[in-house]
Amino acid sequence: MSDRRGLLIILSSPSGAGKSTLSKRLIEWDPDMSFSVSATTRPPRKGEVDGVDYYFKSQGEFKDLVANDQMLEYAEVFENSYGSPKGPVEGAIEAGRDVLFDIDWQGGQQVRASSLREHVLSIFILPPSIKELERRLLMRAQDSKEVINKRMLKSRDEISHWVEYDYVLINDNLDQTFEQLKTIVMSERMRKSQQPHLMGHIRTLNAEFEDR
Amino acid sequence: MSDRRGLLIILSSPSGAGKSTLSKRLIEWDPDMSFSVSATTRPPRKGEVDGVDYYFKSQGEFKDLVANDQMLEYAEVFENSYGSPKGPVEGAIEAGRDVLFDIDWQGGQQVRASSLREHVLSIFILPPSIKELERRLLMRAQDSKEVINKRMLKSRDEISHWVEYDYVLINDNLDQTFEQLKTIVMSERMRKSQQPHLMGHIRTLNAEFEDR
Repeated sequence: MSDRRGLLIILSSPSGAGKSTLSKRLIEWDPDMSFSVSATTRPPRKGEVDGVDYYFKSQGEFKDLVANDQMLEYAEVFENSYGSPKGPVEGAIEAGRDVLFDIDWQGGQQVRASSLREHVLSIFILPPSIKELERRLLMRAQDSKEVINKRMLKSRDEISHWVEYDYVLINDNLDQTFEQLKTIVMSERMRKSQQPHLMGHIRTLNAEFEDR
Repeated sequence: MSDRRGLLIILSSPSGAGKSTLSKRLIEWDPDMSFSVSATTRPPRKGEVDGVDYYFKSQGEFKDLVANDQMLEYAEVFENSYGSPKGPVEGAIEAGRDVLFDIDWQGGQQVRASSLREHVLSIFILPPSIKELERRLLMRAQDSKEVINKRMLKSRDEISHWVEYDYVLINDNLDQTFEQLKTIVMSERMRKSQQPHLMGHIRTLNAEFEDR
């Protein structure tokens, strides 16, 4: 067992609030941190690699994973299934490595209700304004107006769950938000629940008292 | 109301583990942070100032404070009563200032059971070894051997409550422990529960969705 236990770091936000960039930066900052690659039944987009961007599964394969309790969380979004496989997460946190989850409120609720809930750190990223959120979505320019409207509705739904998270950051300035995120992660790593070696230290102190 | 709510920061440790030095440094680092001055029935020692080191109270005055629900926590230690007056703490945290408590596990349990429990951050400082703890007590050289033995017994009792705290730090190196302490405080200030202004931001975002 590692000196410390890893965290399940859940980052949620409406799309366009900066979550992906912040996730990327966190992993660059700590290369031991791993990203929880989701499984999905949606077909790969151009350039997406199986096992890197997603684990692409058929409907049948996905159902089997769920039936065998191999999913930490899963949900249907826009008629496709998405979920986080459990195995890699358990291995990483036992080895003292944090796992980053880029999931929505439905996934967040399920991970917080799972057997690993004691190790969850959940952070919600809010946009400074809705105008700014829409501007960022339009800039990507890869989606139709209809898809953008659908995303904006989903954003409103997503934002309504901000209160379920441990920390909530307003992403006004990316560098500053990243510094806040790092401070939170460093602090949460020091939490008693993430420090299994403390029990050994207490045992040693008690033995010293006995020998006094 | 301030943009953020203050924290009740509880630092506990056996005497000699570095708690007083760390408290002093925290207050130097953030002059807005205030120290919760305890009330006590023990007589003042040479040089101690009423209202700075302690609020010195008679047994009768102390009982009245307790009876009028003016104490956040109180206990008897070595035949004297000690406690934390509630008023100054409530004022400070509403104004967005943190209040530091140098109290033992009994006080910690009571503050965590109080109406302000949502704003409590509790940190336990462990010594690297019992030998080191005793060495630090002997160095002070102001106490008799009997008093030191009594303190060592109390230390063992104090350490047995480490598990009740949010964070536990082993004070191997004072500078490093202080850095860890600062990181924890900065992070906890960002917790959703300490950010009352978030509700206003959410209201604004919802109004923007409506106007879209």
